[in-house]
Amino acid sequence: MLIGRKREGGELDLDELRWLVTGYLEGGVSEGQTAAWLMAGVIRGFSPVEARALTQVLIESGEVLDLSGLTGPTVDKHSTGGVADGTTLLVAPLLASVGLRLVKLSGRGLGHTGGTLDKLESIPGLRTALEPDELLRIADEVGCVVAAQTARLVPADKALYALRDITATVASPALIASSVMSKKIAAGAQTIVLDVKTGDGAFMPSRDEAAALARLCVGIGADAGRPTVALVTAMDQPLGTGVGNALEVEEAVRLLSADPDGRLAEVALALAAAALQRGGTTTVMDAAGTRDALRSVWCDGTALETLARMIAAQGGDATVCEAPARVLPQAPVVQEVSALHGGTVAAVPARAVGELAARLGAGRSRPGEDVDPAVGIVLNVEVGDEREPGDVLATVHARTEDDAAEAGAALRALVQWTDDPVQRPETILERVDEE
Amino acid sequence: MLIGRKREGGELDLDELRWLVTGYLEGGVSEGQTAAWLMAGVIRGFSPVEARALTQVLIESGEVLDLSGLTGPTVDKHSTGGVADGTTLLVAPLLASVGLRLVKLSGRGLGHTGGTLDKLESIPGLRTALEPDELLRIADEVGCVVAAQTARLVPADKALYALRDITATVASPALIASSVMSKKIAAGAQTIVLDVKTGDGAFMPSRDEAAALARLCVGIGADAGRPTVALVTAMDQPLGTGVGNALEVEEAVRLLSADPDGRLAEVALALAAAALQRGGTTTVMDAAGTRDALRSVWCDGTALETLARMIAAQGGDATVCEAPARVLPQAPVVQEVSALHGGTVAAVPARAVGELAARLGAGRSRPGEDVDPAVGIVLNVEVGDEREPGDVLATVHARTEDDAAEAGAALRALVQWTDDPVQRPETILERVDEE
Repeated sequence: MLIGRKREGGELDLDELRWLVTGYLEGGVSEGQTAAWLMAGVIRGFSPVEARALTQVLIESGEVLDLSGLTGPTVDKHSTGGVADGTTLLVAPLLASVGLRLVKLSGRGLGHTGGTLDKLESIPGLRTALEPDELLRIADEVGCVVAAQTARLVPADKALYALRDITATVASPALIASSVMSKKIAAGAQTIVLDVKTGDGAFMPSRDEAAALARLCVGIGADAGRPTVALVTAMDQPLGTGVGNALEVEEAVRLLSADPDGRLAEVALALAAAALQRGGTTTVMDAAGTRDALRSVWCDGTALETLARMIAAQGGDATVCEAPARVLPQAPVVQEVSALHGGTVAAVPARAVGELAARLGAGRSRPGEDVDPAVGIVLNVEVGDEREPGDVLATVHARTEDDAAEAGAALRALVQWTDDPVQRPETILERVDEE
Repeated sequence: MLIGRKREGGELDLDELRWLVTGYLEGGVSEGQTAAWLMAGVIRGFSPVEARALTQVLIESGEVLDLSGLTGPTVDKHSTGGVADGTTLLVAPLLASVGLRLVKLSGRGLGHTGGTLDKLESIPGLRTALEPDELLRIADEVGCVVAAQTARLVPADKALYALRDITATVASPALIASSVMSKKIAAGAQTIVLDVKTGDGAFMPSRDEAAALARLCVGIGADAGRPTVALVTAMDQPLGTGVGNALEVEEAVRLLSADPDGRLAEVALALAAAALQRGGTTTVMDAAGTRDALRSVWCDGTALETLARMIAAQGGDATVCEAPARVLPQAPVVQEVSALHGGTVAAVPARAVGELAARLGAGRSRPGEDVDPAVGIVLNVEVGDEREPGDVLATVHARTEDDAAEAGAALRALVQWTDDPVQRPETILERVDEE
């Protein structure tokens, strides 16, 4: 029996996994049997061979996007999720500006992490529910498009995830990797670039686990004939300064309006460079060449213009790229939070900041809940910064004075200080290429 | 979350287990969650504390038999199941004959193992579906009664077992022990005696595992205030000579009609002695005293008479105890199987013999199937016997000539021979008392 074999640490092959997963979707394999198999695998471990086979089974469960009609190399980008992680809003227009085609299917935020769809939908008029022909048309005209995951792609992943979520079987590298990669492969791009977050605010707290997940994903991509590169990046503190939906759009516009600056820009450029190098042209560009090309479209305003065209194509008010504060919804209460301490910032715990923003209304505790596009936090400190008592730590954007006061107090409490010198931590920790 | 804690090898307490199991029965905890918990526990192990708590939760799920109105000490007996294991047919009348009261709720056979209900029901007219008041009346008048498990006792065990059966989570000492002991404790007897089988034809192939299960069960009994003794006994070869329903009743009658002889009689006497010693009287009898008392009611025909009275009280034809061959159904084809080899019998694999009898129609491959009361095998050899070519190995009782020929050939193939001397193996391997 398949479940018993997994219970003893054995390996299931492609046909067996297909039988199990298809059976679960169609009713021949019960919820209990599927959960028992998942738990056995989570404890005993799934092999890389099983991860690749499971990815294939998940892909087979639904439709696959055909991007072959697009002019230019196709690329996709995925982040395992974090706080103030607005990289998609930068990477998409950057890559489109240098001639790549990016059709990105995104998700919504949950818990302490934000979701790209929620951020984009803070722009008045913007639609993320797009039909395949609309996706392809925008990708062809603009170069990039960011839309909602469709239920027609990898439906088995959705069904399995719902079961994993209630049976304590989410935390398995192979299950996470096959879930991520099946969605990326089914979305049709030739090249895949992954941002695997590690640290306090990430799904994978330890760097070793994150790197192992990255290697697993890269191997699955290679096996499927989709060149994949992964960066392992730090998520101990929020990546950008804006934590909240409209606040993160505003930050993206601000960043693209000037020369690249800060950790969010650094990660976005590195991801775009990896994608361009791996999948950009038939002749592989060198690292310096790709960086130069990307900096050039960033600094001359092309990337911002591309973002504006994408927003317009998706029905949004593109003037957000000229005057974000005028277009985006604004919170009724905006309050500065000043430092009580002085010294050097030792930590700004990402998860706690994310949870704080969610509590203000920027996030949801369960799928399907509404989010408030306007509220959130804009940070004014990062690890290594020196501050005097009274300096502004952050600005809280809230629905009420009470919310703002509560969030301000919580923020003050969670920023950690030291009198010792603090070295600014690295943000890009590792790059994982095919072996 | 409880399931995640178990996944990491943690322990759940009584309230948590009650919440889980009750939730599963009532629908608040899904089949998948229950299966994930079971699988985590099977792999990580359940603690003895969890086994005791789970036993309590299972008992609480249903009614409990009240035997306090019976005159005389109450005792119950359980075997973990084997081949040609007709001990209940001997132990029940033996104990009743020395003044104990035994209300035994039994199950049916499955796979290679036989079930006491199936055996008893081969007696024309005998009913095993008895209401509680009928059970108590017969136990009071005769001293013993053997009836079908009722759905009102430990319904949670039935529900959990059905899930374990399809999720590869049966093989857990704690789950087996809590299942066995919850049913025994709910059945109300003051003293419990267990026959934990080990070897090829047993559920627990290794002696160490069987002894561990025995210790776990004895500990649960002690914890619940029900003195429990367990014997670990060998199930490498069939225990009795009859393998089949009517054939095992016939063997029991034949054994009780003469002085105790053979391994089946030895185990029955040892189980009865353990029960009598532990639960018989307020003054503990010594080993020799209990053996003498039991041999006396065996040899003077009292036990056989008690069996006849029990059969009559349950509606069966009691003359089976005088002329079993006339009363019991007979198979149309009865064929002797002769030895091709000569030498010493090295093995008569119990599981294979049990499967052979089941294939003849004596057993069932899934619950609910009918069994043929008449068919089966009567063995004429055991390990250590010396035989010449042409000697009779067994008699096959079959529905057709073809069935008989096939079973005969299979039997010849599965008996193992050697030219070396073979020591007759011990049958009673270990006795486990409360610590």
